[in-house]
Amino acid sequence: MTVRFAVLGAGRIGKVHAKAVSGDPNATLVAVADAMAPAAEAIAAQYGCEVRSIEAIEAAKDIDAVVICTPTNTHADLIERFARAGKAIFCEKPVDLSLERVKACLKVVDQTKAKLMVGFNRRFDPHFKAVRDAIDAGKIGKVEMVTITSRDPGAPPVSYIKVSGGIFRDMTIHDFDMARFLLGEEVETVMASAAVLVDPEIGKAGDWDSASVILTTKSGKQAVISNSRRATYGYDQRIEVHGSEGVASAENQRPVSIEIASAAGYNRPPLHDFFMTRYTEAYAAEIAAFIAAVTGGAKISPSGQDGLAALALADAAVKSVKEGRAVKVSEITG
Amino acid sequence: MTVRFAVLGAGRIGKVHAKAVSGDPNATLVAVADAMAPAAEAIAAQYGCEVRSIEAIEAAKDIDAVVICTPTNTHADLIERFARAGKAIFCEKPVDLSLERVKACLKVVDQTKAKLMVGFNRRFDPHFKAVRDAIDAGKIGKVEMVTITSRDPGAPPVSYIKVSGGIFRDMTIHDFDMARFLLGEEVETVMASAAVLVDPEIGKAGDWDSASVILTTKSGKQAVISNSRRATYGYDQRIEVHGSEGVASAENQRPVSIEIASAAGYNRPPLHDFFMTRYTEAYAAEIAAFIAAVTGGAKISPSGQDGLAALALADAAVKSVKEGRAVKVSEITG
Amino acid sequence: MTVRFAVLGAGRIGKVHAKAVSGDPNATLVAVADAMAPAAEAIAAQYGCEVRSIEAIEAAKDIDAVVICTPTNTHADLIERFARAGKAIFCEKPVDLSLERVKACLKVVDQTKAKLMVGFNRRFDPHFKAVRDAIDAGKIGKVEMVTITSRDPGAPPVSYIKVSGGIFRDMTIHDFDMARFLLGEEVETVMASAAVLVDPEIGKAGDWDSASVILTTKSGKQAVISNSRRATYGYDQRIEVHGSEGVASAENQRPVSIEIASAAGYNRPPLHDFFMTRYTEAYAAEIAAFIAAVTGGAKISPSGQDGLAALALADAAVKSVKEGRAVKVSEITG
Amino acid sequence: MTVRFAVLGAGRIGKVHAKAVSGDPNATLVAVADAMAPAAEAIAAQYGCEVRSIEAIEAAKDIDAVVICTPTNTHADLIERFARAGKAIFCEKPVDLSLERVKACLKVVDQTKAKLMVGFNRRFDPHFKAVRDAIDAGKIGKVEMVTITSRDPGAPPVSYIKVSGGIFRDMTIHDFDMARFLLGEEVETVMASAAVLVDPEIGKAGDWDSASVILTTKSGKQAVISNSRRATYGYDQRIEVHGSEGVASAENQRPVSIEIASAAGYNRPPLHDFFMTRYTEAYAAEIAAFIAAVTGGAKISPSGQDGLAALALADAAVKSVKEGRAVKVSEITG
Repeated sequence: MTVRFAVLGAGRIGKVHAKAVSGDPNATLVAVADAMAPAAEAIAAQYGCEVRSIEAIEAAKDIDAVVICTPTNTHADLIERFARAGKAIFCEKPVDLSLERVKACLKVVDQTKAKLMVGFNRRFDPHFKAVRDAIDAGKIGKVEMVTITSRDPGAPPVSYIKVSGGIFRDMTIHDFDMARFLLGEEVETVMASAAVLVDPEIGKAGDWDSASVILTTKSGKQAVISNSRRATYGYDQRIEVHGSEGVASAENQRPVSIEIASAAGYNRPPLHDFFMTRYTEAYAAEIAAFIAAVTGGAKISPSGQDGLAALALADAAVKSVKEGRAVKVSEITG
Repeated sequence: MTVRFAVLGAGRIGKVHAKAVSGDPNATLVAVADAMAPAAEAIAAQYGCEVRSIEAIEAAKDIDAVVICTPTNTHADLIERFARAGKAIFCEKPVDLSLERVKACLKVVDQTKAKLMVGFNRRFDPHFKAVRDAIDAGKIGKVEMVTITSRDPGAPPVSYIKVSGGIFRDMTIHDFDMARFLLGEEVETVMASAAVLVDPEIGKAGDWDSASVILTTKSGKQAVISNSRRATYGYDQRIEVHGSEGVASAENQRPVSIEIASAAGYNRPPLHDFFMTRYTEAYAAEIAAFIAAVTGGAKISPSGQDGLAALALADAAVKSVKEGRAVKVSEITG
Repeated sequence: MTVRFAVLGAGRIGKVHAKAVSGDPNATLVAVADAMAPAAEAIAAQYGCEVRSIEAIEAAKDIDAVVICTPTNTHADLIERFARAGKAIFCEKPVDLSLERVKACLKVVDQTKAKLMVGFNRRFDPHFKAVRDAIDAGKIGKVEMVTITSRDPGAPPVSYIKVSGGIFRDMTIHDFDMARFLLGEEVETVMASAAVLVDPEIGKAGDWDSASVILTTKSGKQAVISNSRRATYGYDQRIEVHGSEGVASAENQRPVSIEIASAAGYNRPPLHDFFMTRYTEAYAAEIAAFIAAVTGGAKISPSGQDGLAALALADAAVKSVKEGRAVKVSEITG
Repeated sequence: MTVRFAVLGAGRIGKVHAKAVSGDPNATLVAVADAMAPAAEAIAAQYGCEVRSIEAIEAAKDIDAVVICTPTNTHADLIERFARAGKAIFCEKPVDLSLERVKACLKVVDQTKAKLMVGFNRRFDPHFKAVRDAIDAGKIGKVEMVTITSRDPGAPPVSYIKVSGGIFRDMTIHDFDMARFLLGEEVETVMASAAVLVDPEIGKAGDWDSASVILTTKSGKQAVISNSRRATYGYDQRIEVHGSEGVASAENQRPVSIEIASAAGYNRPPLHDFFMTRYTEAYAAEIAAFIAAVTGGAKISPSGQDGLAALALADAAVKSVKEGRAVKVSEITG
């Protein structure tokens, strides 16, 4: 079976998914939609698909699945529309910045029995996935402690910060999902510390740029997350899982892995400077996994519930910083 | 000037310091004391020094300095006695497990103007010291976030756990000192999570074996500590300091740094399995620094106040775990 | 300008190049030819191009360039045919196993002023290229010594060995080209030692499976090559260039770069096990460079002369092993 | 049994051995001799031993063993004198720069049944030794190819070069010994290329400063050595052994193993800049091995014959460069 796709939103991430869909032997890119006609037309020209309106795609009989790459504030609405239209849905994270809105949206998904996958692409990074596979293969015994280092090359514009939902909902949310992916047990309490160390403008916008989080599960497993909005040496993305039999870790990836030694010492070039080059393979693999789930009937993962769970951890982290205490996730999810 | 030494306590760590003193061109080992005569005699024979009683050392005119390596519960008393006897004092950590007792002891040190150095040996590890030197040299800009990974090869006997003061006062205390050494600003609040994941017997003894801590300074700098009483791959000791211009890190040290590649992949032997082989150079360097401070009149560091500060962080961590909240250090120190 | 392509030969490497051509924005894949119809048809179906005969491609007005991926013994003939037909030619290495045949072929290329690029793909590996860029940027000063380690995961079938031209012409030829690429000066003498250490069947087929080579330039620069037909840990491909100011090196690439530490030590998975996955990026980059040269009029590199030079080094290496002496390249090229 | 030692020669390396002897529980340093009285007196003061003349040491009944650290041109004479005097002898490499002189000297050693160990200290480096242990433990199967990279931080003064015996006898000789140590089979032929790339003054002194060597054993095993008299990044000392089941390697050692990442990339400090700091542990371990052999009656290794064999390889390398051919070791040893 070939899955017939429409991509909604022809921006940066839309292009990435259009390419992934086009290159997949089990998929066809049928249509692309964007409020900005030239953006949609560029994708249409490159991959030989049509430009259509959202409405037309909703009604189309030749489309099985949509990839939602539109602005965040449209995600929940579009998920509900396409769930009702009977399409399989891949939605970029987050479903919404409001936990209540996400819950309402997922209720529709549930009622319509729609297939919904949320774009936590890092689960599909081959190196992170290999860490998870090592855990599953029993190579480190029982998981005890997870360490996630996640630092952006540089802070986004303050205009973006203002609509981002804040560092925990915008940036750490990926790490919350990764922690859940690796812990193998739900998080019970969240402790977080956050500050403005990088750029005072971020503070003026009501956000933080540097954060540390401890997640604790019921059985006492702990995950530690270290975030900064700025790392001069590139996009710093590392994970480490400590278990009863050993530790599994994934180091940073580099666009060019050479080393130059001189009187000044040994020098390796900086890391990737952009999440799209760092996670190129992950983006392709997540779309392939979505296609496989749509065609093969496998359980979709990460699901809408995974999106909800990560957002709840973000909300708990905000509360923990503000109230200076360990926040139970149940306080957030009710 | 040559500093004339007595070593009090001829156990494992006493031997290490006796060797360091003997090998230092600016020091002489004059005497050793131990309740167990054979232990003292062994050191005396090896380094050509005398066996004396504590009292004799206290009264001796040919002794300038003592190294206190006796059991923890004798440290504060001995510090006070030798402070009053006018000796320079190097004391293994901790001064005491009770913050009140430490305060009282340091009051005596103050009144007697005694020179007191506390044995936080890791500050003298050449690799950790080089990280600090890099910070001082401005190589990473302003310090923002510190990450300390500190895991023992295996848990000590439960009998030791019971008198150890608990994981935070016994083990993490080194990491608290390292965090203070690297942050360059006093810690204001402590958040900690701890659990029994390694050995239920440790839990029965009223302690934890796995812990995560976030320290936050007034300006918002954060230090994260990850502890486990057991690491199958050896003595795991890493630090990383993230600053405005970059990051400085010290990786693990290995007794043998070879690699064997085969069909099973690339394999390197485990880390050191013992703190004494891991920190061999640090032990020698701290005694050299003590001697230099005694002879040169430099300010002694780490001081008794550093010992007090680290203990206060440990007490705050205990309180944080128990009360599920961020604990202000000022709550502890009063 | 868009370059219109035909791919000759629809085997393993033909598929790689068909994919690269199809994915390049400045190229179109118009046709594919193969003696085995199903192989050609598979490529045609996948990329929407036609199946044509060699003759039809030769005569076609809608084809600007060909990629020759047919068996080695047809390369020289096809180069001559398509040179005369006025097509730009990308030919997989080698042009031929006989130096005389290569010379004759290049004469035709010269006379017809055809554009010919030879597929020494490793020059386009981003890591190796970065080493060369570092040299060009003066980061290691004047090049003095080159070290190339090049080991295959496993020996090819003896049936292939028999027609391969032998280890130096089949395998080391890539390293000879890399040495020339990095030395920046022509090789004057070749010293080689070779033996059968891996598989006696290779010896029976008249070849060796383990070889060491020293290349020396007129000014005394040296390149050392270490080859084995079998490396249990994967496809071992490393280069190192030692210069007056420092050294530049490219380490091995890994499909998955995780590490697992346990009581058995630190383990990383093996290297790539196949040249096609190791050099994926290099294959795409070399076709892009070919397209750029065809459209932009830049000098094509590596050229037919580069192919000839590497083959001459291979012939010299064979002679050196057989005669136990340093062989001048001029003895071979005449 | 305690071995009673005299150290002959109180220069740089004499000090190293005096310290090793003094620190060994199974040895006593009884005397030191040097033509320069102050040098000998300094050692005597530091370790509480006597200054004696060579003659007095020769005749002394309270001395069991000597460590010869005098200038190279006195080694063979002193070995013969002390062999006849019935002392066990540790002699710094080389025995002599002339193969004939070494042979004559070893004949005396043989006749007197003297115990003679030659100071190829690198065999005792814990990392190199661990590679050899891995081979012995069968971890890489049958040894096939050895790669040795050996580069000095900087060239010695030309005045030293002139009396050094040349790069092969002075510097590569360590690598020849290491190759023999790792190959596990005697070398049959030597091919070498050498040039003056670092400093023309070295060429004027009749020596080379950059060399590449291929050693081949009877069964076809190969060792490749790459030497330079100058490495800007420090003392570059690496070995790699490729076998039928895998590869074992020892990377460079560093005085400080930190890493600093910034916008300029990842930087590690340079390597050791001096052979004495690089091989500190090796120097202590070789004296311990000598003491163990003297007291325990174990076979002494490396022996005088090992010294002879390495020198023969050096002579063969010189001949190979000069004659441009593979030189059989039997041509040298006769």
